[in-house]
Amino acid sequence: MKNITEFAERRVRLAESFRDRKIDAFLVTALPNVRYLSGFTGSNGALLLTADRSLLFTDPRYQTQAPQEADCDVKIAQKALLSEILIWVKRLGVKRLGFETKRISFDTYDFLKHNAKTFRLIPIADVIEQLRMVKSAAEVATIKTAVELNSTAFDHALRTFKRGMAEVDLAAEIEYRMRRLGADGPSFETIVAAGPRTALPHAHPTTAAIDADALLLVDMGATVAGYASDMTRTMGVGHLSPKARRMYRAVLESQLAAIDSVKAGIASSTVDRSARSVLKKHGIEKWFIHSTGHGLGLEIHEGPRIGRKEAIRLEAGMAITVEPGVYLEGFGGIRIEDTVIVTKNGCEVLTPTRKDLVVL
Amino acid sequence: MKNITEFAERRVRLAESFRDRKIDAFLVTALPNVRYLSGFTGSNGALLLTADRSLLFTDPRYQTQAPQEADCDVKIAQKALLSEILIWVKRLGVKRLGFETKRISFDTYDFLKHNAKTFRLIPIADVIEQLRMVKSAAEVATIKTAVELNSTAFDHALRTFKRGMAEVDLAAEIEYRMRRLGADGPSFETIVAAGPRTALPHAHPTTAAIDADALLLVDMGATVAGYASDMTRTMGVGHLSPKARRMYRAVLESQLAAIDSVKAGIASSTVDRSARSVLKKHGIEKWFIHSTGHGLGLEIHEGPRIGRKEAIRLEAGMAITVEPGVYLEGFGGIRIEDTVIVTKNGCEVLTPTRKDLVVL
Repeated sequence: MKNITEFAERRVRLAESFRDRKIDAFLVTALPNVRYLSGFTGSNGALLLTADRSLLFTDPRYQTQAPQEADCDVKIAQKALLSEILIWVKRLGVKRLGFETKRISFDTYDFLKHNAKTFRLIPIADVIEQLRMVKSAAEVATIKTAVELNSTAFDHALRTFKRGMAEVDLAAEIEYRMRRLGADGPSFETIVAAGPRTALPHAHPTTAAIDADALLLVDMGATVAGYASDMTRTMGVGHLSPKARRMYRAVLESQLAAIDSVKAGIASSTVDRSARSVLKKHGIEKWFIHSTGHGLGLEIHEGPRIGRKEAIRLEAGMAITVEPGVYLEGFGGIRIEDTVIVTKNGCEVLTPTRKDLVVL
Repeated sequence: MKNITEFAERRVRLAESFRDRKIDAFLVTALPNVRYLSGFTGSNGALLLTADRSLLFTDPRYQTQAPQEADCDVKIAQKALLSEILIWVKRLGVKRLGFETKRISFDTYDFLKHNAKTFRLIPIADVIEQLRMVKSAAEVATIKTAVELNSTAFDHALRTFKRGMAEVDLAAEIEYRMRRLGADGPSFETIVAAGPRTALPHAHPTTAAIDADALLLVDMGATVAGYASDMTRTMGVGHLSPKARRMYRAVLESQLAAIDSVKAGIASSTVDRSARSVLKKHGIEKWFIHSTGHGLGLEIHEGPRIGRKEAIRLEAGMAITVEPGVYLEGFGGIRIEDTVIVTKNGCEVLTPTRKDLVVL
């Protein structure tokens, strides 16, 4: 993904909004945004951007790495980044400094405010997050790689499955295969839950054995070159009750209906409504206790949200998950999730893994 | 680690500071702090604590999990947590609400401020982080488990090492062994760097082959029951130059001197100075471009910092890393790191892995 032109282009696009926002510089403190705009992947960094200067601040641990990765003017701060940044804000004659309201701590804000003698602080929400929502062709290609790797790792890990295997051991196999296939790592803590624990949407895998006859839910993501994938599959181990099978069919129908409704121009809430209305028809809507999906990219959760009240319009190039699920305490849960790219007339489902009910 | 008494005791200790801080309630928004004070491990949650009430707010995804984990009054917010929290701030008659300045976004603060009609917001820095610095016996035991698991995983992974193996594949083996041994996962992105890439203190593993004759650096951590370990070892593959061997001996001498200086009552900067002075004697102090260590526990980086200017006094029960390193661009880097527990008269080195120069 190192593509100097792409990073510089993004900064130009961002700078185009400076006039409207009445700022002459922007302080970028969220690490995924720093990466998006510079290519820098370190764990400590911030960007100070003006119309014609791009300064990347980091600490001495990254003095070699930062100039290799980022097409910016790298400043290695010997003390706190913020103190160094303030020196440059003054040196560059910045009068109105934009900052990321959602991505800065109160503390950092407070420090800046107390030192803002020569400039004003202008709160700006989500401007980079909005740029990030619509992916470039290169980003879509990377996400596709992540999604396909994810599915391959899932297949490889399932081949090691034996009844009685511990949830944590299946999680270990999944993450190992992802790594071996070239992932940077899992994009979130892999969920492997069996039996009634499938009713916990965010179950941590345990040492409990995955035994028949029960549901098995796997929710996994791989990060590849910084970009995340996200997939959930629910399977049966041994005999599944008619009730579990009915629930599975309802969730699959809901997920397919939601995917069917995706296209550029519609409100994201439409997709959520499509998923929810199928579950309503089956009388299990009340067990659907989260939203239908979320955007993903450099972060596993980013815009747009696909929820009940989200007015945002989908645009071609957005990468989103579609993941309805139902959870019945004491019985179990079923969720089916794909990663899709919004297109002009519909969407491209990136996830190649089969969705009919697999029984192990 | 689920120990209801321990969580409740921590909340009592925190509440004892309310009077001095002139607050009648505290809003806890940092997830590791939420976990520390309640046992809740989910990805979305906040605590509202008064002298006699402990309310945990989360979303419907955790409606089953939260009451299982936390010994608090669980409130499932149907909309945003903050809106629900504000209702309870009012209902409980809170007049002065403390908030975590370093662990709240400007945005969240701003929302609270605009809705603070019946109460005042009182900024509070680090109070929970200070409690967390000194570990209980149970916490030390968990960290010890994490450290020992970490070393075992390292040994198991090294047995799979063959010259020509890719950095990412060794990282995959390490993380796989950690998982199989019972870790929740790596506590940070595993670093495996060979040859000149060892000069990057935070190198991402690449597909490059680990070949002779070169340095090989592994920095790894395992999270067990929420608690982190942290260890770095630098090895040789094949023949190492006399210069590399000299550097190794200097760093080891520096690390041992630093460990030797650790004990309750001294300033943490003393430990940093001990490490640095040995490297100075060898004329390579300028290549030591980071601080000597950091606290760890529910987070991989927490207090106290072990740096040049840290005045904080070490206390018995603190868990810290000791990890001097030298980095020479184009040549390579060497870092040796253990996790230790500060005791009254010294420290207990938890990491059992050998530190003489291993050549693979």
